[in-house]
Amino acid sequence: MPKTKMQVQKGFLFTRLAGEIEAGIAAGAYTAGEKLPSIRRLRESRGVSLETAYRAYVDLEARGLVETRPRAGFFVASRPRQAAAPRLSARPYGPSPVSFAAATADIIAASLDPRLIPLGASTLSPEWLPGRHLARILRGLLAAELEACLNYAPASGDPELRRAVARRSLMWGAPVDEEEVVITAGCAEAVALALAAAAPPGSPVVVESPTHFGFLQLLRESGHPVLALPTDPAFGLEPSALRRVLSRHSVGACLLTPHFQNPLGALMPEERKAELVELLDRRGVALIEDDIYGELSYAEERPALMRRHDRAGNVFSCSSVSKVLAPGLRIGWCLPGRRHLAAVKRLKSAFSLAVPTLAQKAVARFLAGGAFDRHLRRLRGQLRLASSQMADALSAGFPPGTRFLAPRGGNMFWLELPTGVDAMELYARARAAGINIVPGNVFSPGSAYGHHIRLSCTRPFRADIRRAVETLGELTLELMKPPARRGGRP
Amino acid sequence: MPKTKMQVQKGFLFTRLAGEIEAGIAAGAYTAGEKLPSIRRLRESRGVSLETAYRAYVDLEARGLVETRPRAGFFVASRPRQAAAPRLSARPYGPSPVSFAAATADIIAASLDPRLIPLGASTLSPEWLPGRHLARILRGLLAAELEACLNYAPASGDPELRRAVARRSLMWGAPVDEEEVVITAGCAEAVALALAAAAPPGSPVVVESPTHFGFLQLLRESGHPVLALPTDPAFGLEPSALRRVLSRHSVGACLLTPHFQNPLGALMPEERKAELVELLDRRGVALIEDDIYGELSYAEERPALMRRHDRAGNVFSCSSVSKVLAPGLRIGWCLPGRRHLAAVKRLKSAFSLAVPTLAQKAVARFLAGGAFDRHLRRLRGQLRLASSQMADALSAGFPPGTRFLAPRGGNMFWLELPTGVDAMELYARARAAGINIVPGNVFSPGSAYGHHIRLSCTRPFRADIRRAVETLGELTLELMKPPARRGGRP
Repeated sequence: MPKTKMQVQKGFLFTRLAGEIEAGIAAGAYTAGEKLPSIRRLRESRGVSLETAYRAYVDLEARGLVETRPRAGFFVASRPRQAAAPRLSARPYGPSPVSFAAATADIIAASLDPRLIPLGASTLSPEWLPGRHLARILRGLLAAELEACLNYAPASGDPELRRAVARRSLMWGAPVDEEEVVITAGCAEAVALALAAAAPPGSPVVVESPTHFGFLQLLRESGHPVLALPTDPAFGLEPSALRRVLSRHSVGACLLTPHFQNPLGALMPEERKAELVELLDRRGVALIEDDIYGELSYAEERPALMRRHDRAGNVFSCSSVSKVLAPGLRIGWCLPGRRHLAAVKRLKSAFSLAVPTLAQKAVARFLAGGAFDRHLRRLRGQLRLASSQMADALSAGFPPGTRFLAPRGGNMFWLELPTGVDAMELYARARAAGINIVPGNVFSPGSAYGHHIRLSCTRPFRADIRRAVETLGELTLELMKPPARRGGRP
Repeated sequence: MPKTKMQVQKGFLFTRLAGEIEAGIAAGAYTAGEKLPSIRRLRESRGVSLETAYRAYVDLEARGLVETRPRAGFFVASRPRQAAAPRLSARPYGPSPVSFAAATADIIAASLDPRLIPLGASTLSPEWLPGRHLARILRGLLAAELEACLNYAPASGDPELRRAVARRSLMWGAPVDEEEVVITAGCAEAVALALAAAAPPGSPVVVESPTHFGFLQLLRESGHPVLALPTDPAFGLEPSALRRVLSRHSVGACLLTPHFQNPLGALMPEERKAELVELLDRRGVALIEDDIYGELSYAEERPALMRRHDRAGNVFSCSSVSKVLAPGLRIGWCLPGRRHLAAVKRLKSAFSLAVPTLAQKAVARFLAGGAFDRHLRRLRGQLRLASSQMADALSAGFPPGTRFLAPRGGNMFWLELPTGVDAMELYARARAAGINIVPGNVFSPGSAYGHHIRLSCTRPFRADIRRAVETLGELTLELMKPPARRGGRP
């Protein structure tokens, strides 16, 4: 385990516990297939809470070291996955303007190309999404409420949908009133409005490194220099890095994805969330949290919003139904901190007036019914299974030196390639072989992550996906070979 | 006719001709109900083009001085309307930040209140819009193309819709290729993207005075000071005012509604469009034209885009289907000048990713079919009739001293109230009487137009609307009365 990782775990009980168990497995104290102590037993022997013990096992399981067997408990994985985590991006970046690789637009377009095996796009396959149920709701609305559905909705959103979102917020650890909900064109517009409300023009904005390329695009287009800070592949943004940056720069806002981050898949522990919110609060810097993958937790319960720790009214929570119902509906929301609510409402009205009424009402009906929770349970199970199969295939098919963590939710795999393998080259060869992946370059404002790729798990792990992963592994191996010696010409 | 009006007409052939005919009517050369010379006759006797002659009559008709009888020609109106135009706003405003009346948000909200007789909102009544046809198309899409409709569309728009818009642009005097079309969340987002692409941060932006309050909101939220310039109620922005402002200020962009402007109803003559585009081009200032009412011309042909005169690739044309199909679909488009196309595409992708796919495909099918033109013809006829009835009712029901022009397209009536009548007071009394109107204050960045109101004609002119107009006229008369003398107390 690399040194940086050990450092960041200091202070987080469950990760320390997981580290100890991992060390025990590595040392042979527990052998493959052996039953591990129950979580109650761990509580007694180590003096930790049930939750801490549970989280330690979930963490180990996500990393392929431990297996859960229903009603039997936790066991050492019979064939442990290659489990080295990608390393932390060591150096902070910025504040500097985003300088995009010219290739980015092309790479993003390729991720929508239906002729390629889709290991690049993060959009879930329609077979996992409740399209037919949505169509039924839409038809019902067209029959019974046509006039209302074709007329303007209020700028802050259809009252029924705002109510449905507010009701669901009871499960997010930070309940809001419907008056605090602003409906937006997907999570993208929610984040754009939050940024416009919170960050003074031209002020530098803190993001994770690596981060969602959409955020880099937004920051470039809105003229904010970027401060991209070291981010742990398992646990998210480093508080120490944030502390240093806040003491040196007049930061405009901080934009994070605490849950199953894109592209890392990192899940921020509750303690770290509290610490970051407090750090930002002390400096009066707004936090914009992107919760778009929050509902896709593989654990029983979804993680709580960072907003839960907010006392100053300075945290914006943004999300959408794009990853759980349908991306093409373009329905999202912003829950602005109370300091910013009026500004976000004004901005929404000024920039795009309102969100389509028909889609708002359809989502409202779906969220309010019991079908949504049933769908989520099923979707999480499907995603967890496919993701575990993908992790196994990556572990078996990629050459030694490849580093990755299996996610604990969402659908992202962040791979650090073996030394010397160039991500753009792998991207090009994969494309020639009919496979789409995303090279790491697009997730960084500078030129970092030239040896990383993002793969996503967006559909059942069938033979075509398995073969594509194997092919990718072979292409990676080829790129590791020393180049053929050149001819004798000078 | 006020002096300012005479001045602005200098140089525009058809308005000069209209002025001459008007003078003839006033002098008794033609009497009420008398047939006027045919347009061919006018061409011969005055040496003008057929188009000029036709436009002169259309202009006179819109102002209630002339009547068209199908297949018979043009006649002096049997009961000429009170025809004084509202006066030009005399002084330019700015560059200054927009300072909104606190009442604006409340006034906008009231215009959506279904309990009030709607003379305020500019949204057309569902009975004039093809809701059932749209519902049929939507149902067809849900049945046959569900997966595609629930998935992301490309950021610049669904290819089918971009093609349909490009095909229609053949009728707008400035044809574009589908690659030059960017689909947006209504006209509001199209204008916001154009502004972000064209105007440097903090640069002053020229608008008409009065102008759409949504533009003022947008400029305030995006931090642009406003230069609101005198605008003729019949013919739009004054070129002389623009020339002066361009020589004194470093203007970031110019935002105009050349066709049936909100709230004036002004229609800019072709010559003036060419003059303004050339003025702006010479200084390298981008023009953003809002064409949202362009299809609602009462004449046979809709007016051409200002873009037609663009040689520098510096004109953005923005529009939507909100005034012709359904506001709640939120489908619009931006046709950026070639200088700005790449920037608008980047901004759209960064700020809201994409527009809902289902609504895009539905609009594409509607625009591409012959039903759209049939619908437009019917809608224009309905609007023209209702608007003419409204003009008659205003003329009959409002006290002397009220000034307005009947529109030549769209659905706006801009009323200058008799001396001393306060628009906010009339607004409040109308509301108490169950009628919604919009006071002039909200159309100006400062505090102009306190004696103006905007009425809109959005549905068939039935008894309830007629009564509401009569009531408004009575309330106006009441407000003209000198206040009751106060009691004897000092």
